[in-house]
Amino acid sequence: MTNVDAPVIAACMPPRRVLLGPGPSPVDDRVLRSMSAPLVGHLDPLFIRTMDEVQTLLRYAFETNNRLTMPISGTGSAGMEATVANLLEPDEEIVICINGYFGERMFEMASRVGAKPIRVECEWGKPVDLEKTRAAWRNSRASVLFAVHAETSTGVLQPLEPLREIADERDGFLLIDAVTSLGAHSVGIDRNRIDACYSGTQKALSCPPGLSPVTFSPRAVDRIHARKTKPVSWYLDLGLITSYWSNDSSTPRAYHHTAPITMNYALHEALRIVAEEGLEARARRHERNHHALVAGLEAMGLSMIVPEGYRLWTLNTVRIPDGVDDMKVRARLLNEFDIEIGGGLGIFKGKAWRIGLMGTGSTANNVLLLLAALEKALKAEGYQPKDSGVSAAAAYYSAN
Amino acid sequence: MTNVDAPVIAACMPPRRVLLGPGPSPVDDRVLRSMSAPLVGHLDPLFIRTMDEVQTLLRYAFETNNRLTMPISGTGSAGMEATVANLLEPDEEIVICINGYFGERMFEMASRVGAKPIRVECEWGKPVDLEKTRAAWRNSRASVLFAVHAETSTGVLQPLEPLREIADERDGFLLIDAVTSLGAHSVGIDRNRIDACYSGTQKALSCPPGLSPVTFSPRAVDRIHARKTKPVSWYLDLGLITSYWSNDSSTPRAYHHTAPITMNYALHEALRIVAEEGLEARARRHERNHHALVAGLEAMGLSMIVPEGYRLWTLNTVRIPDGVDDMKVRARLLNEFDIEIGGGLGIFKGKAWRIGLMGTGSTANNVLLLLAALEKALKAEGYQPKDSGVSAAAAYYSAN
Repeated sequence: MTNVDAPVIAACMPPRRVLLGPGPSPVDDRVLRSMSAPLVGHLDPLFIRTMDEVQTLLRYAFETNNRLTMPISGTGSAGMEATVANLLEPDEEIVICINGYFGERMFEMASRVGAKPIRVECEWGKPVDLEKTRAAWRNSRASVLFAVHAETSTGVLQPLEPLREIADERDGFLLIDAVTSLGAHSVGIDRNRIDACYSGTQKALSCPPGLSPVTFSPRAVDRIHARKTKPVSWYLDLGLITSYWSNDSSTPRAYHHTAPITMNYALHEALRIVAEEGLEARARRHERNHHALVAGLEAMGLSMIVPEGYRLWTLNTVRIPDGVDDMKVRARLLNEFDIEIGGGLGIFKGKAWRIGLMGTGSTANNVLLLLAALEKALKAEGYQPKDSGVSAAAAYYSAN
Repeated sequence: MTNVDAPVIAACMPPRRVLLGPGPSPVDDRVLRSMSAPLVGHLDPLFIRTMDEVQTLLRYAFETNNRLTMPISGTGSAGMEATVANLLEPDEEIVICINGYFGERMFEMASRVGAKPIRVECEWGKPVDLEKTRAAWRNSRASVLFAVHAETSTGVLQPLEPLREIADERDGFLLIDAVTSLGAHSVGIDRNRIDACYSGTQKALSCPPGLSPVTFSPRAVDRIHARKTKPVSWYLDLGLITSYWSNDSSTPRAYHHTAPITMNYALHEALRIVAEEGLEARARRHERNHHALVAGLEAMGLSMIVPEGYRLWTLNTVRIPDGVDDMKVRARLLNEFDIEIGGGLGIFKGKAWRIGLMGTGSTANNVLLLLAALEKALKAEGYQPKDSGVSAAAAYYSAN
């Protein structure tokens, strides 16, 4: 055996940051406490009941009756990969709308699992170009259309109805990324006839990262069952996973992999909080805090990247004023105020900040605190705000 | 938005089970408490330090200096898939020793990622057949040899030296499953010249399931960098993941996916406990409790599946006596004593129990409690133990 001395490392004592970046979002104390519950086995009757309840609660959040609704045992990207790896067989075409970082990621994943992705190149910071999308759909033999509901890289909210309409031209399957919308903006799986959708736990659900809720329509499930080839990933094979997560009480749960017990406790509690607040009230809260933040930012003379009407309530992209150093302002917010906001991704790197107001983090207190801290940090970096952001936000709250 | 009423679901209040099955293992209260720490961002300086420390602690547990040593963001099966998906390119051969459920699983995964797996069919409950393995290796063009160090399905400990010797015949890569050995039996990555290895957090490390520690030798890393094709999985692409987990301070961490922050807190604390106890002392503790359990089981007239000398200390497979109902005994243990043990897998289904003594769960108290409870349950099901298991175990402890 080793003769190496054991490393002596101090306990990890994380500070309580104000998490206002693109995720992870702050987690409610109830959820944090839920994770210190003792473990039970992954086939324990108590855990089976917990799984059933998580499924029920996820159906509520997704606004669906889909039986196949469950968390994948990985972060949002694992759920993303699970959808494309299961829906598509080798050489099948999929039309992918790319108006941000995560459309690009889906293109890459689709290529790797052996599908034939078709790019619809759209402008970053705008919703997808419907004419281009319609043309790509018509010129392809694709049976699946993919778009991102809430682009975390740009802050764009994508209207889903027109995409459903395009896919309907030949009864196509609609695959949607709802990582940064679920729990804030209505995803409306059944209402929008979305065939497959994945999300993460670490955004508007305010649960730590580590699971990825997914849902599939009955006809998507039929499509998966009718596959001629096995998915390239055993770990993400929904045919196998569902024999464990099945809530059909007539057949016993079949072991697939050891479920992340504790993360499921956390998701259970986070979803209970969503249900207690109610989706409608939760949406209104996110909407209101977003508008107050925008009122504050604009009063300070800053401008939003995304045109009005297409802005996410959960993730606000704001232009960094000329001459202001991205990293210095963010470091100041982190070190002086314990506030995390995000930098830009892709073409917005160094050009925009991403301010998240997600789940537990979407509060008036956080909006006011962030505006006050940002004002101070901007002044320290030589930028003189036009008006007081705090006053403008406070005025918005008084009036709304 | 939805008109559906929000589901009303009670909080999940798991009981404190005595987890003596094949996993998850019981988790130390320190680790449970670590998970209620507030979240920080996945690029927060505090989290970066935590990642570095997790890597240092994992190197200690794996007994390696491998730079590429880190946790994959999924359970043990995700780490398993990551190794084979990254090491092998399409149509490359890999010799897979199958003497249990997990060899079979690796065969399936290797096929799916496009490799050409070659089966070495071995007896379940025994170590791998070295003559067959050598023949398969010589008759193939495989560059990778796979075996399971600790077969969770059978309870067999696999000697690693002879496998290294076979692979050395033409400088092959040795890929090892250490899910149920790491933190108990010495894996000795560097000593045994293992090129790639994966484990889980939920066995002898006594951390909740959700992460999979992996380690790769420098020449395995070179092999991965020299790939001509991309791995089929974007989520498990080690080339991408390591640009986030890289501990090369000259380059900034590149975002890949949002790391499971809380699970990393837990692994950090679990590995600190391993380092405090020390690998050598931890091995001796697992060994001693295993022998005491076997003494007790044999005194009761029960017999072990695995021949002496090849038994895992962490996972004990014992034959279910003729006429005794598997499910009834396990239900009795669970309902009357809050004790979980595992049923058999594959050919041992209904024929064997799997008793885990892993990490925090490997204690004299648990051995004595289990023997007492099993004696009572067996009697209730009509089986009359030969002698007292508790007395035999207590005698073993007194003498050792």
